[in-house]
Amino acid sequence: MEKYDVVIIGGSAAGFAAALTARSQYPEKSILVLRREDATVIPCGIPYIFGTVGSPDKNLIPDAMMEKNQVDLKVDVAKAIDREKKVVTTEKGNEYGYEKLILATGSRPAKPPIPGVQGNGIFAVEKDANYLANCLEAMNGAKDLVIVGCGFIGVEFAEECIKGRDINVTVVEMMHHCLMLNYDKEFAVRAEEGLKKRGVNIMGNEKVKEFVGGDRVEKVVLESGKEIKADIVLIGIGTANNTAIAEDAGIELGPLKGIAVNRYQQTNDPNIYSCGDCAEKVSFFDGKPSPLKLASIACMEGRIAGANLFETRRMNMGVIGIFSTLVDGTVYAAAGLTESVAHQLGYNTVVGEAEAPNRHPACMPGCEPIKVKFVFEKGTGIVLGGQVSGGSSGGELINAISAFICQRMTAENIATFQMGTHPGLTASPLVYQLTAAAENAIGKMRRS
Amino acid sequence: MEKYDVVIIGGSAAGFAAALTARSQYPEKSILVLRREDATVIPCGIPYIFGTVGSPDKNLIPDAMMEKNQVDLKVDVAKAIDREKKVVTTEKGNEYGYEKLILATGSRPAKPPIPGVQGNGIFAVEKDANYLANCLEAMNGAKDLVIVGCGFIGVEFAEECIKGRDINVTVVEMMHHCLMLNYDKEFAVRAEEGLKKRGVNIMGNEKVKEFVGGDRVEKVVLESGKEIKADIVLIGIGTANNTAIAEDAGIELGPLKGIAVNRYQQTNDPNIYSCGDCAEKVSFFDGKPSPLKLASIACMEGRIAGANLFETRRMNMGVIGIFSTLVDGTVYAAAGLTESVAHQLGYNTVVGEAEAPNRHPACMPGCEPIKVKFVFEKGTGIVLGGQVSGGSSGGELINAISAFICQRMTAENIATFQMGTHPGLTASPLVYQLTAAAENAIGKMRRS
Repeated sequence: MEKYDVVIIGGSAAGFAAALTARSQYPEKSILVLRREDATVIPCGIPYIFGTVGSPDKNLIPDAMMEKNQVDLKVDVAKAIDREKKVVTTEKGNEYGYEKLILATGSRPAKPPIPGVQGNGIFAVEKDANYLANCLEAMNGAKDLVIVGCGFIGVEFAEECIKGRDINVTVVEMMHHCLMLNYDKEFAVRAEEGLKKRGVNIMGNEKVKEFVGGDRVEKVVLESGKEIKADIVLIGIGTANNTAIAEDAGIELGPLKGIAVNRYQQTNDPNIYSCGDCAEKVSFFDGKPSPLKLASIACMEGRIAGANLFETRRMNMGVIGIFSTLVDGTVYAAAGLTESVAHQLGYNTVVGEAEAPNRHPACMPGCEPIKVKFVFEKGTGIVLGGQVSGGSSGGELINAISAFICQRMTAENIATFQMGTHPGLTASPLVYQLTAAAENAIGKMRRS
Repeated sequence: MEKYDVVIIGGSAAGFAAALTARSQYPEKSILVLRREDATVIPCGIPYIFGTVGSPDKNLIPDAMMEKNQVDLKVDVAKAIDREKKVVTTEKGNEYGYEKLILATGSRPAKPPIPGVQGNGIFAVEKDANYLANCLEAMNGAKDLVIVGCGFIGVEFAEECIKGRDINVTVVEMMHHCLMLNYDKEFAVRAEEGLKKRGVNIMGNEKVKEFVGGDRVEKVVLESGKEIKADIVLIGIGTANNTAIAEDAGIELGPLKGIAVNRYQQTNDPNIYSCGDCAEKVSFFDGKPSPLKLASIACMEGRIAGANLFETRRMNMGVIGIFSTLVDGTVYAAAGLTESVAHQLGYNTVVGEAEAPNRHPACMPGCEPIKVKFVFEKGTGIVLGGQVSGGSSGGELINAISAFICQRMTAENIATFQMGTHPGLTASPLVYQLTAAAENAIGKMRRS
């Protein structure tokens, strides 16, 4: 039996982040990462394998990152945890003793119990390079792709798969529009229009009843009675937590069936931590269980778990939820609560909006409009959320908004926010989207 | 005599921002802006007139912005203020009564008392479209440009003037390198190398002794004895506050000769406010007088002055100083204190640095490295400053850093910051520059 100070089960975003942080915080400790897969796929890059990037091999987090940081990395599947002996046993028959254990076992794509879902040609989005290589090969020969679910996976796969392929792409979505869980309607509708412009068929308000086929899937039957020809199907409707090994060892789960953790990422066993998709989360806003699963959250939690292993050093303040994507060359980004979610949670809100060119004057190269929408709580003026659409710097602009949210800044704070501006990089300071959107809301609050 | 509730002297960034805010905050009030110039030049866009933009006419803030907001705009020069009668008289012989007055008179470029500085062909950077049109015409016929001063004006003019012109461009700078007031040496040196790559000659550690010429400047003589051929000279060594009208009216100045204001932008006359370049500023960090003059600060102060006119509603927390520029296609941005300035102010600092591609995987289009450097106070871990170099989203990344600074976030807060990431827009969450640079500093603090 080999003995390590720290054993981490899982070698994706959370596991790697935890390993790097543990290394930095506890330089003397020995650290092992056990990874099920041969290689670590960059999770957010998966849709891009099917178009822009072109191959799973080009979408990997290099193992060298672990080696460089004196983290041992072994490809092996953890099978069981003996909490008494503090030993992990693996499928290859190895035993690894631990002082502290981190469960970063991630999630797997949900396959809904729809008739025919196990058929050939029906893929989910496994974070495994070999699986994705098979899926890519099938995609390259396909003529009719049906994507089930139009969240981020659906949107990004649709646009990437249609790129450079002679293929019909149809997305089936239960809600009225794409991305409605993450954006307010005006942003979701605009993104959907971008997708249509790229040639994607979108069928909103539809549910799959059955997948029909012989050797391979042939069509998708909807509950409305419509049928869509399909020789390949991708399912992107969410993920389920990988918690089997934790449950078998008597680790408690939370109400959303993630591994229950306190604010230090610690499970009911004080020597066992958990982070990433497999771990239960709470919302930054109401402190209630949150279903959010994001690589950026996984990394944040990994940094907390890794820091707390031998001494309590960091707290998780709850997840805000920050999303960015590109549709038809336009950024759509969101942080915190949308207006509609804020209303569901009972907030009385005031919205502030501003749109301006992201250059000044507007004849500067690369000029595109960027729109910002803030959602404020009416009484306090505290910002609850922000959404951005437009030019590519929107991908970092949302992170200024995230800082506003996590610091519970008010519309007044934002209206006098000091920002850097430059003709070739941002809007003019006079119409800068963050301050202007805050002023827009303040004007409404004063007049109401 | 016409009577307005609000008269604003000055129609550049500060004056316009104050007018827009006053309109939004006090919808019933009448507002007049008195502007000396025929049109409002976008101040930060001035260097780009000489290259990318091509003409002063394309670098204007549209007057329609005032009209749309029911702000009267008159081209006229305010000559005197009668504080007893609350009347402004103008060069055109008009009189405007006011309830509240805002002085947003700006600054003019400093012309150093060097022999020959009044000669033909020697230009400063007046924020006036007619003046700039003359300067552009002279530039278009010139063969040898010498720029005095290598701050932002110097750097941006050098790169823009050499674009598409058969011209020798030499920059003379007193300090060792360009931009040393705003960046730490490693950033300044890198920017300087970018400028050299574009063909600009840079002479550091040099001071101008004399401008020599007949009808037009012919050469620049340095104190070292070196001589540089010149048929046009641009001076970019800073600005002086426009305070004459204020002083004549008995408005007090501050220690740096700006119009003295309290945290509400109010002068010693409670009915007179001041904002922008003409107004004295204090540093966010030590509360002492600050020489910073930026359009973004002018707009911030305009938003404060405009809001406080009839009721105290906003405070100025002091200026942080956020700078962005582009050199040779690379962003250089800075917020708050550099490491060297922090040391001058007596801080014991820890620096955190991280560099990563701004896409993931790195084969995604538009991939460039972005580097972040943080300066933290060692005892508290509070962030004092940040610098960014690299790809164009750095222009917004610096604004997330600005939010960190203005909220006095610590390295620990930043290490667990929740950011949005996307393959086509940002670094991977595992190596994201903001969190990684904070972790880098925390590692050093733990080991020291």
